[in-house]
Amino acid sequence: MSRSSHPPVRMAMVGGGPGAFIGPVHRMAAELDARIQLVAGAFSRDTEKCRAAAALWDVAPDRAYADYRDMMRAEAARPDGAQLVAIVTPNHLHLPVAQAALEAGLHVISDKPATATLDEALELRRVVEGSGRLFGLTYTYTGYPMVREAREIVRRGDLGRIRKVVVEYSQGWLSEPIEQAGDNKQAGWRTDPTESGAGGCSGDIGVHAFNIAEFVSGLQVERVCADLSTVVPGRALDDDCNVLLRFQGDVPGVLVASQIAAGDRNGLRLRVYGEKGGLDWSHESPNTLTLNWLSAPTQTLHAGSGYLSDAAVAATRLPTGHPEGFIEAFGNIYRDFAEAIATGTRPDTVPGILAGVRGMAFIDRAILSSREGSTWVSLQEFAA
Amino acid sequence: MSRSSHPPVRMAMVGGGPGAFIGPVHRMAAELDARIQLVAGAFSRDTEKCRAAAALWDVAPDRAYADYRDMMRAEAARPDGAQLVAIVTPNHLHLPVAQAALEAGLHVISDKPATATLDEALELRRVVEGSGRLFGLTYTYTGYPMVREAREIVRRGDLGRIRKVVVEYSQGWLSEPIEQAGDNKQAGWRTDPTESGAGGCSGDIGVHAFNIAEFVSGLQVERVCADLSTVVPGRALDDDCNVLLRFQGDVPGVLVASQIAAGDRNGLRLRVYGEKGGLDWSHESPNTLTLNWLSAPTQTLHAGSGYLSDAAVAATRLPTGHPEGFIEAFGNIYRDFAEAIATGTRPDTVPGILAGVRGMAFIDRAILSSREGSTWVSLQEFAA
Amino acid sequence: MSRSSHPPVRMAMVGGGPGAFIGPVHRMAAELDARIQLVAGAFSRDTEKCRAAAALWDVAPDRAYADYRDMMRAEAARPDGAQLVAIVTPNHLHLPVAQAALEAGLHVISDKPATATLDEALELRRVVEGSGRLFGLTYTYTGYPMVREAREIVRRGDLGRIRKVVVEYSQGWLSEPIEQAGDNKQAGWRTDPTESGAGGCSGDIGVHAFNIAEFVSGLQVERVCADLSTVVPGRALDDDCNVLLRFQGDVPGVLVASQIAAGDRNGLRLRVYGEKGGLDWSHESPNTLTLNWLSAPTQTLHAGSGYLSDAAVAATRLPTGHPEGFIEAFGNIYRDFAEAIATGTRPDTVPGILAGVRGMAFIDRAILSSREGSTWVSLQEFAA
Amino acid sequence: MSRSSHPPVRMAMVGGGPGAFIGPVHRMAAELDARIQLVAGAFSRDTEKCRAAAALWDVAPDRAYADYRDMMRAEAARPDGAQLVAIVTPNHLHLPVAQAALEAGLHVISDKPATATLDEALELRRVVEGSGRLFGLTYTYTGYPMVREAREIVRRGDLGRIRKVVVEYSQGWLSEPIEQAGDNKQAGWRTDPTESGAGGCSGDIGVHAFNIAEFVSGLQVERVCADLSTVVPGRALDDDCNVLLRFQGDVPGVLVASQIAAGDRNGLRLRVYGEKGGLDWSHESPNTLTLNWLSAPTQTLHAGSGYLSDAAVAATRLPTGHPEGFIEAFGNIYRDFAEAIATGTRPDTVPGILAGVRGMAFIDRAILSSREGSTWVSLQEFAA
Repeated sequence: MSRSSHPPVRMAMVGGGPGAFIGPVHRMAAELDARIQLVAGAFSRDTEKCRAAAALWDVAPDRAYADYRDMMRAEAARPDGAQLVAIVTPNHLHLPVAQAALEAGLHVISDKPATATLDEALELRRVVEGSGRLFGLTYTYTGYPMVREAREIVRRGDLGRIRKVVVEYSQGWLSEPIEQAGDNKQAGWRTDPTESGAGGCSGDIGVHAFNIAEFVSGLQVERVCADLSTVVPGRALDDDCNVLLRFQGDVPGVLVASQIAAGDRNGLRLRVYGEKGGLDWSHESPNTLTLNWLSAPTQTLHAGSGYLSDAAVAATRLPTGHPEGFIEAFGNIYRDFAEAIATGTRPDTVPGILAGVRGMAFIDRAILSSREGSTWVSLQEFAA
Repeated sequence: MSRSSHPPVRMAMVGGGPGAFIGPVHRMAAELDARIQLVAGAFSRDTEKCRAAAALWDVAPDRAYADYRDMMRAEAARPDGAQLVAIVTPNHLHLPVAQAALEAGLHVISDKPATATLDEALELRRVVEGSGRLFGLTYTYTGYPMVREAREIVRRGDLGRIRKVVVEYSQGWLSEPIEQAGDNKQAGWRTDPTESGAGGCSGDIGVHAFNIAEFVSGLQVERVCADLSTVVPGRALDDDCNVLLRFQGDVPGVLVASQIAAGDRNGLRLRVYGEKGGLDWSHESPNTLTLNWLSAPTQTLHAGSGYLSDAAVAATRLPTGHPEGFIEAFGNIYRDFAEAIATGTRPDTVPGILAGVRGMAFIDRAILSSREGSTWVSLQEFAA
Repeated sequence: MSRSSHPPVRMAMVGGGPGAFIGPVHRMAAELDARIQLVAGAFSRDTEKCRAAAALWDVAPDRAYADYRDMMRAEAARPDGAQLVAIVTPNHLHLPVAQAALEAGLHVISDKPATATLDEALELRRVVEGSGRLFGLTYTYTGYPMVREAREIVRRGDLGRIRKVVVEYSQGWLSEPIEQAGDNKQAGWRTDPTESGAGGCSGDIGVHAFNIAEFVSGLQVERVCADLSTVVPGRALDDDCNVLLRFQGDVPGVLVASQIAAGDRNGLRLRVYGEKGGLDWSHESPNTLTLNWLSAPTQTLHAGSGYLSDAAVAATRLPTGHPEGFIEAFGNIYRDFAEAIATGTRPDTVPGILAGVRGMAFIDRAILSSREGSTWVSLQEFAA
Repeated sequence: MSRSSHPPVRMAMVGGGPGAFIGPVHRMAAELDARIQLVAGAFSRDTEKCRAAAALWDVAPDRAYADYRDMMRAEAARPDGAQLVAIVTPNHLHLPVAQAALEAGLHVISDKPATATLDEALELRRVVEGSGRLFGLTYTYTGYPMVREAREIVRRGDLGRIRKVVVEYSQGWLSEPIEQAGDNKQAGWRTDPTESGAGGCSGDIGVHAFNIAEFVSGLQVERVCADLSTVVPGRALDDDCNVLLRFQGDVPGVLVASQIAAGDRNGLRLRVYGEKGGLDWSHESPNTLTLNWLSAPTQTLHAGSGYLSDAAVAATRLPTGHPEGFIEAFGNIYRDFAEAIATGTRPDTVPGILAGVRGMAFIDRAILSSREGSTWVSLQEFAA
């Protein structure tokens, strides 16, 4: 990997207090390569909890803010203030926090999806475009070296013209109505439309599947025909999504996502088929990428190998056979974003607001299609 | 396994001459357990080829018939004549051959799908029901011990109520227009509507996926919303099928089948999810069955183990760790069918004409749905 | 595969009565390709049991013999008498039965190991060499297409000079003293030195591991340094074997075999490393062969593929993705042996008496080495 | 995981300059959980390189020392000086650096093996025992949650009495004499006895295999019978190791390690068999642990699951299905060590000097055994 010699980027975080899942991941990922330093945070609106998080992460007590607007103001005024804000809140806060940060002149990196609704995403696009600041989305899976290798393989034309895409994301953790007990913060907000937005499974993981399919195939989805369900009684949002896709060039595809696939863990898998062969990547074995060919042996590519593309090589820290995982993939997105801030050159590896709008369009249109009895609905007005 | 002491059932075959794929499999499978003996055949309409096949399989020359109708007549008249006819021809001959055999008082075991069209299947149902003879379909995959185990697991309620079914069947061998060269008998008839019927990929392998999904889940598909494609230019029939399903009880499902998934071999995979866990079976590793649970370790069941159900134990010949495959699975169907002929007790392990009609209804309705722009189309009038 | 047009070879069997494991496998394997027909048998010394086996396998009652010597005599005298004898008894009968058959002018195919002791094997070699008849050993694993492919890969030099061999065969079924209950025929004779000979685990499965290592690597073991154990109290023979090997050219190797590896099924695995890469084959996934390379992606070869060697192609019956297993591998040995009988041209795919002597030498010398405190003991006087 | 509220431990590093492999891993692992902060370093004896590393890792320029003795002195004198020294140099420096650090009153965490020779390890043991400071060894693999789970499973007696251990560590990266080109720092020192000590493959990875086997089985190796080779011409140290083991209670075992297993990556695998079942862990799929049972389905345990032991739960940061890898495993050792420093309670998860001595005894005795023609050599005088 190439190493920057710039001093670390100073980062503030919004969200990530006690009980959070993704906040700590952002913290570890951001600091993994010593290119970013967490210096401030509005980790929780509860002052006590906010300070506890700061202590845990070695952030000075006076830079732990209960209100994110106060933080933007104070940090913007410091000579050593934060340059970058990481947003790790539930979805409904993505827009206001991002807007506040960008307006304070700070760069923004946000957890996905872009916002809670498609309208908010369109609004955020306007804000980002007018801000002169960088905006990135942590679609984690695009950070894996073998996902980046997969994209390079498609780009190079090794598979020939792409003819089919199958993507699935299968989880089982919402098989029971665990959000109804009230003590599961993660299940709680994800199944609550006031915090999550209109999408349940579609917005939490379906959008990851959608994004990785477009990221690797290089093709945009043009229309969807969706069958969303709420399988667990009493739940407000969808928890199971089965979607027919048509990509540019009328390429057929399927997206299958579920949070009630009992027993499944975090089963994201992408297959892209071309005229000459197909690629197959599974998140739970992230360090390999399988290529099947029409009339040659199957190939398994291993992360960390010298024969990989520059894009994949740049995204590993260890020799082959030394597993890297979710935090490292996340770290690649942060490292690339820090480099972008330092150099002003935005890398194509970090999804931005355009990918964010497309993700929200997917959620919105899949819900619409399903409500109308699985009709085909177009995404073309949101072409990136 | 329990062993019958009945003498072997005498079998005649229609089809299976030089260049055939499935005919030789039927022969090996039928004779594997010494419960059936091939004694006659109309292997080919070409007399030379018919006799060559007979010689290869140790069938007496005078019982090699160029015309299957002659064979029915001659064998029915012999005291040691065939009791059973195996049909291994292209689909368009299934109905006339089956009808001739049944009318000659012979039992019939036929390759899938039941016929070339849904109308033919309904006609065949009438013939079978009036014949007093047994009719079985070699939906091969139902012969695998771990598929039978999967069905028992669902039946016992181990997974709780079933809530989702995902089935896929992915092949790549028709990625190129190999049928156009004229020398590939297998590709030729499968892509020719006059021999194959209305379904291409849907009829060749989609129907297998459909059948195994119903066989294991114990649920019938009530409606389909299909997106079929002909990806390879110049081909007359579909070669890629993506279908949304709704089973009884409004259970969602997805069926993905392809013959242009370049590099894939014979990737049939079934996942059935219930309230408590999910099962996962893949054809290319047929001797294991994986069970994932909401909050317990994943289990892998191995064929040949003592802890399996009677149904699975009866379907293996070897101790655990000794792989059995496609021929043995096929052999299980034949063995069960021979037992049925000997005892007059039809086992529930061999799909019959009702499953045959449902398969043809699936093909017919999926094509209809796709033509109408992926609307939902009902299968309920064909409930078994 | 190429098909012979010779009439089927007529076979008699010795052993294989009720309770047998390997006898039925031999029967299925022999008849799988219609190149051999079972016509007679001395299945059991108990007349009732012998006739029961004959009935089960469609052998005429008057050709079911309680005494194998009677059978040799009677069959040799018939114009349609057996041409080939399959020996599927415990080890201590291999020599006398083979001798009787060969002296009656019949070809012999025998289960492994060659005999009960090394001295017997040397005696059998003399008998075979003087008989003018063919003698084959069913070292099953050499029948797998991907094992034959592995041998071709080494022969072609794809891996460069061979530098290390690791072979293991891990079972757990003798973890408990199940032979002491008296009702397990398989465990009984295998742990009884009067029937099994001097080797327990070493003779039952260690010898398979030894044979496949030499078969694929093309190198003979020159010396062994063994540590054999009897782990289960009260057992007379070894049930765990760990052996250091040195092959020709001083190539290092390891052989690990166990029947007390609790929970393991039938875990034969072979790895052969050369200068440029290594091959890896595991019996429980027999239809793939993995090649790892110094600086190129890992390759997985799939049985039934067109890119394989002629040797592998000839050993499959089905297209890629259609699993074949233990019976089919066994069937390949029988098919090749039948072809040898028909044509008089012995194929190099079926191990003969020389491999038999080497196997017995391995057992004998490993036991000797272990008794002497794991000293190095030479096998060079038994070079093939 | 439980979180400490102590301020981060201040750490200095010796080694880890440009071209290093393991230094950067230590840095990432140490800082991963914000419980340790790198504040100083003697990264290289070359002042320029030392400062470059400091800049890269955000260490103040005045705390980058070209001489580690200067660093010990200067840091010990600062009120905010380092409390802990991480040693990431080649082996020959482990003893002098550790001694200097301990004598300066600093805790020490060192890469493995303990030292370059067994005598040095015994000397280091005396120094550690007299220092009143903590000493830990980063036997990385003991940091994996599923390795810790494996240890708990053995400790709880789930497998019954342990009866066999098979451990292997297979790499191919030294298949060619890459150390002779002079530009591969990693290959260079590992094959140079003046830096590496007496062991090549045995000291670099064999010792890892030895340590994990003892860590999980809870049994100490009592004697070894080794066959070490130098396969690549011109190399001074062993590059292939095959070792018979006997553990306490005369339990048999095998250790197979290689750096010339061409094509292999970082293939550490451990199998431990008891009376009731066996466990199987492979480093390249670190987040699962397989349990095979005598007469029950195979179980696969997944890291991050709620059903795991406290020891395994404490060693994961993410929900199940989110892969953690080598850096996180390393991080677990650092986190536990930081906790030990903060609380004065040494966790049993971090190997110390006793494990260090045992590792060096293994290397020393294996070399001795091999030189003497693979005789059994005792390790009992180094019992921990």
